[in-house]
Order: sequence, then C-alpha cells, then structure tokens
Amino acid sequence: MPSTGRLTRADAEAMDAADELALLRGEFLLPGGIVYLDGNSLGALPRRTAERVREVVEREWGRDLIRSWNANGWIDLPARVAGLVAPLIGASADEVAVADSTSVNVFKLLAGGLRLRPGRRVVLSEEANFPTDLYVAQGLSRLLGDVELRLVPRGSLRAALGNDVAVLLLTHVDFRTGEIHDLAGLTRAAHDAGALALWDLAHSAGAVPVDLGGCEADLAVGCGYKYLNGGPGAPAFAFVARRWHSALETPLSGWMGHASPFAFDTRYEPAGGVARLLCGTPPVLSLAALECGVETVARAGIEGLRRKSMALTQLFVALVEQECRAFGFALASPREAERRGSQVSLRHPKAYAIVQALIARGVVGDFRTPDILRFGFAPLYLRFTDAWDAVAALREVMENREWQRPEHQARARVT
Amino acid sequence: MPSTGRLTRADAEAMDAADELALLRGEFLLPGGIVYLDGNSLGALPRRTAERVREVVEREWGRDLIRSWNANGWIDLPARVAGLVAPLIGASADEVAVADSTSVNVFKLLAGGLRLRPGRRVVLSEEANFPTDLYVAQGLSRLLGDVELRLVPRGSLRAALGNDVAVLLLTHVDFRTGEIHDLAGLTRAAHDAGALALWDLAHSAGAVPVDLGGCEADLAVGCGYKYLNGGPGAPAFAFVARRWHSALETPLSGWMGHASPFAFDTRYEPAGGVARLLCGTPPVLSLAALECGVETVARAGIEGLRRKSMALTQLFVALVEQECRAFGFALASPREAERRGSQVSLRHPKAYAIVQALIARGVVGDFRTPDILRFGFAPLYLRFTDAWDAVAALREVMENREWQRPEHQARARVT
Repeated sequence: MPSTGRLTRADAEAMDAADELALLRGEFLLPGGIVYLDGNSLGALPRRTAERVREVVEREWGRDLIRSWNANGWIDLPARVAGLVAPLIGASADEVAVADSTSVNVFKLLAGGLRLRPGRRVVLSEEANFPTDLYVAQGLSRLLGDVELRLVPRGSLRAALGNDVAVLLLTHVDFRTGEIHDLAGLTRAAHDAGALALWDLAHSAGAVPVDLGGCEADLAVGCGYKYLNGGPGAPAFAFVARRWHSALETPLSGWMGHASPFAFDTRYEPAGGVARLLCGTPPVLSLAALECGVETVARAGIEGLRRKSMALTQLFVALVEQECRAFGFALASPREAERRGSQVSLRHPKAYAIVQALIARGVVGDFRTPDILRFGFAPLYLRFTDAWDAVAALREVMENREWQRPEHQARARVT
Repeated sequence: MPSTGRLTRADAEAMDAADELALLRGEFLLPGGIVYLDGNSLGALPRRTAERVREVVEREWGRDLIRSWNANGWIDLPARVAGLVAPLIGASADEVAVADSTSVNVFKLLAGGLRLRPGRRVVLSEEANFPTDLYVAQGLSRLLGDVELRLVPRGSLRAALGNDVAVLLLTHVDFRTGEIHDLAGLTRAAHDAGALALWDLAHSAGAVPVDLGGCEADLAVGCGYKYLNGGPGAPAFAFVARRWHSALETPLSGWMGHASPFAFDTRYEPAGGVARLLCGTPPVLSLAALECGVETVARAGIEGLRRKSMALTQLFVALVEQECRAFGFALASPREAERRGSQVSLRHPKAYAIVQALIARGVVGDFRTPDILRFGFAPLYLRFTDAWDAVAALREVMENREWQRPEHQARARVT
C-alpha cells in the first residue's frame, strides 16, 4: 500500500496485480456483481466442491450404495479431513477429530476437561465470548449441578484464574471485533493456575495461523463453514493434545468413537486417541464438501493467506478513514493488523440499516448486535479492489442516506 | 402369494404386476444388476435428491451465499423436515426436531428424561439394544456418577421396571432380528411404574408405522439414513410429547436452540417446544438431502408401504424355506410378519462368508455379528422378484459352496 497521499482505485488495482494469491479466486464459484465480505459467516463455494458432491451423491451413494463405506473410504473421511485441518492449527493429524458441530464439540471437551481437573468446578470465560460456547457451558453446568460458569471482562481473565478454575474457555478471534487473544500467553497462564485451556478457533481456522502445538494448548474446537469453506452447517473439528489422549473421556460416547464399532459390544470401550470424539455415523455429504473446502486453504498455504488478509484489512481500514470520516463510524477492531483476525468491524448507531443498504448494493457484510458492521476478508477469493469498491459503496450509502429507506429497517430472521 | 403349491418366479412376477406401489421404484436411482437388501443400513438415492443437492450447492450456496438463510429458507429446514417426519411416527409437527445424530439425540433426551424423574437414577434397557444407545447411556452415567444403566433380557423388561427406574430406553425394531417391541404396552408399563419411555425408531421410521401420540409416548429418536433415504450419515430426529415441552431441558443447549439466537445474549434461554433441541448450525446440504428422502416415504404413504413390506418379507421367508431348507439356516426374525420390521434375518454359522458371496453375486444384504445374515426390504423400491432372485442366489451360493472362497473370509473395516 502506498504510504503517502490519497489512495485511489488504481492503487488497489496495483495491489491486485502484485498479489501472488490472486489466481486462487478462480477456484471459487462466485456470483457476479457481489463484493462478498461474509466469508467469516459462510465461506464461498469452491468449484471442486460442486463436482465432488455430485460425485459422492450420484456415484458413491447412488451406484455403490452401502459398500462405499469401505470401497470409497467413507469410514476414513473424518480422519482424512482432520489430517488437512491439523497443519492449519499447528496440530498433528492424530490430534484432530472432525465430527458434529462446534457446539457439540465444546460440550465434549468441556465435560472431558472438567474430569481432567478433579476438585475444580469453575469454567472461566468472558462475557463477549461467542454465545453458543457460553450456552453449552451453561447446559453442562445445569446438568452437573456443581459447575460454575464464571464470566469476567476480557482484561480480568488472568486475574480470575483462581485455583478453583478447571477450564479456561475462550474464542481466539472475537466474533464481533476480530480482536485476537494471546493464545500462548493465556494458555500458559491457565497452566500456571493449574487449569486447562479450551480454545474456540471458529474465526481463526483457515485465516489466522494457530500454533496449538507450540503453545502447548490442551483442547480446541473450530468451525468448518467459515474460512474453511465447508458449506452451510459443515461439520466442526476438535483438537486434543496428545498428552491428554489416554485420559480424556467424552460423555458423548457414541458407536463411532468405540474401539471396535462393528463388534457391536454391549460395553463402550473408547477408541485410541481423538477417534473417541466421533459419536454418531459420519455425515458423508457434508464431510466430502468440507474436505474440498479445507483443501483450498491447504493448497494456498496459511502463512501467505495471513499476509494477504492483513494487507486487505489494512487497506480497508485506511480507506474507511479516508472516505468515510464524516459519517460517525468508529473502528471496533484493533488498529494493528497483527492484533485482529481476518475481519474489520465498525460501530455505528445505524449499523443494521447501513448493512442492509450495502447488501442492496451488492456489498455483503453482516450486522452484529447491537451496533456492529462486520466485514470479513477471506483472502482466498477477495481482491484489493473489493476493499475499494466496498468502501466506495459505504460512502455512497452514507452520502445518499440510503440506509434510511424503509426496506432497510425491518429485521430479518437470520441476521 | 399363492397359498398352496411350490412358488415360482412367475408368482413373484404376478405380485409385482399387482403391486400398486411398483412405480415408486422409478423415483430412485438404482444401479443395474443389484438386488439391494440393505436399505435398512443406507436407503437408496432418490432421483430428486441428486437434483436438489446440486441446486442447494450451486445456486443457494454458490450464488445466493449467506442470504440463503433467509431467502432460501435454510433456517426453516430443520422444522420443515420435522413436519414431514411427524406423520410417519404419529406425532404433531411441533413435537419433532431434526438435528445432529441419533446418538447425540439419545444423549439429549436421556439427560432431559432423567431430570423429569428426580430421585430416580436408573436407565433400564436390554442387552440386545443397538450398542450406540447403550454407549451413550454409559457416557451419561459416567458423567453424572450416580446414574445406573441396568440391562436385562428382553423378557424381563416389565418385571425390571422398579420404582428406581427413570427412563426405559428401547429400540422399537431390533436391529439384529427385526422383532418389534410392544411400544404401546411397554410405554404403559413404564408409566405405571412412574418412568418415562425413550424409543429409538431407527429401524421403524419410514417402514413401520408408529403411533407415538396414540401410545402416549414421551420421548423418541430416529435415524435419517435408513428407510427415510436421507443419505449416508443424514441428520437424525428427536420427538418430545407436547406435555413435556415446557419442562424438558437439554444439556446440549447450543445457540440454535435459543429463543433468540441472533440476539447473541450471554444467557441461554430455551426456545419454545422442541426447537430447543437444535444445538449447532443446521447442516444444510444434509438436511436438503434428507428432506427429499422423507418426501419419498410421505408421498407413498406409510400404511401402504407397511403392507407391501410385510408381503415382501413373507414371500422371502417362504422362499428361503422352500429353496434353502438343506443348508442349515435358522429364521432369526419372528415368523409372523406383524411382529417383525421390514427385514428378515437368518442365522448361520458361516453368515459372514455367505453374505460376502451373495454380495459378489450382486445381492447386497449385511452381516451382523455373530451369525446373522440380515436382509432389509425397503418397500419403496424393492420388487417381489427381488426376493425371488435373492433366494435363488442364496441357494446357488450354498449349493456351489461359493462362501468357502478365500476372498469371502477376510473381514472388511465396516461390516
């Protein structure tokens, strides 16, 4: 990015021309006329996925039917996808399981983590954590009766790590602001206090490199349908550090996590390692789509993606400040690219209507209550000119007061 | 079926000609040269599914992206599919939720059921129940510490309904033998003992009509990928009788079961009714496939399907007895069609190798440990001549001792 002077669209075009990852956009089927800044809610469709899902449905299910579990390797799909996710989060392939939803995996690992810290009955988290993580902790707390979910402000987490804390439950990249937690430091602090750390990587995996191994992380979960491009409601993943493998118990001890599922024994015996985190029958169609999605990230390389992502968000912030200074936006994300994930969030009292007006112009971001405009920059398929065009649209929405139109006020069911 | 004399293939052909449901086979994409008697493990692919999944992937995900949650009704998919499942099991649409796997739903309802019976800490089941139900009960038991899973033989269930039993956990149609439990009588017996009944309808839904409402059933779960034709690892369903709606708590309290998921409140507040059983983000591709699968059953009508299913299994039993008397098979299923589900199971010491030899001839059934050959008769797409051809193949496998071939001995990963 030019360091001086007023930025123009030509600057963005030059950045696209110099972008070594620019060709990756061609691997996705993107609609024309849209600037898609919502890959952090739902990643775009890889071309290969459309073809692969058709193949799995028509050939593997339709023609090969039940024998596909062996002949087409369906039974190995969870482990195969896990092997692709692992390097993105600094894990070994045998430390990752792909199954169920993020929420269900939080439940498994939170329950399992509590058992690894007998005598400690507090789950520590922050109020700003993604709600489903808190809800699941509340559900486990009600079920067990003697577990407390303690919520503190972000800045008080370290101080709140008392000797009654069993598990520190945090999301690495904040879903509203994009602020990145110090995963290494907070994991160390949890360990120093005798607790385990359980990280939700929903907004990290595929966009922000994570080094779970290097940080001596204990437990983590993450989402398949955001930066991993697995499709709507894709399966999620769970990470368990190898040192906990033999001790970790999952309360969701379904047959696919059994040491010998097809022995049909009456008594549950956990499979070795993370395979015990599988529960029901693997969702093959969804896993096939997720495999293609994760491959797009794996092929691109997570380090290069992070560099491009930071450049994209940096340009967007600079452009908002250049073009939209008059309209009362506040930057909700950290100003330093290193401290935020692959998103830029702005605050504005009319956030909801402004987001709707942008969508009407083909700039798709999302609103997060109460006053956040959230713009995700999936570096696999976004261009620097997309950042320019988005800010140009934002400026026009504000200048023309398009957000005041009646059709932009009514709340949709899903926001 | 002719009541006297030796059955011939012409008799089966005549039954096909008279079959009012015969045309439904055309709604499925079935491979040529195969007699598929494994629709109880994995239902066949409906033609419509192939088209619908392509549409969801390419148009709804690829083109409409995130706005599909509202614009293409993704957010309503779980309730829409639930509305199709409900009449098949004698439930109201607002008593069924479609989410997660059968195993995960057993966990939700077992935990929820235990809370509805405070002071009682026994889950009663039978040793022959499908293992994942037992495993999940064991996982919950280990998690809670004071819950006992008590397993008794089938004939002792009523006597074992003591005043410490909170939940009677049974599978309606036995996965090995196909024997049907007296759902109404056992539910009544559970109620008389002050317990709730939780029924697993995995081998019933879509093949055997169930009247949960008429039986005053409390809780049930079921599988989407067997007779509902939802595809490999399809989402499962859960039933909660309306009278329990306000009291039932799920420990898996994820954001999609929240009263207002997009308010992003810190505190979990359950949605009204069964909607609280949703947990993570709905798996859209899998739900779209499941919707098409359930529609095939709904269009055909469950009562007519049951009549055809009974006629198919009756013919198969008669043919095995006519053609294969010399080979040492024992009928593992009840002889009376009314007392068995849509399957016929035989016992034979060489069951595994015989099943492999049949598969090599294109007759696909499955083996269930230790000595069961299991043949599922999905009435939507099977013909009476399929029953004839299957038995003819079985006879040749035995006469020619094809099962002795070395390639039929080695156990596959998934059986």
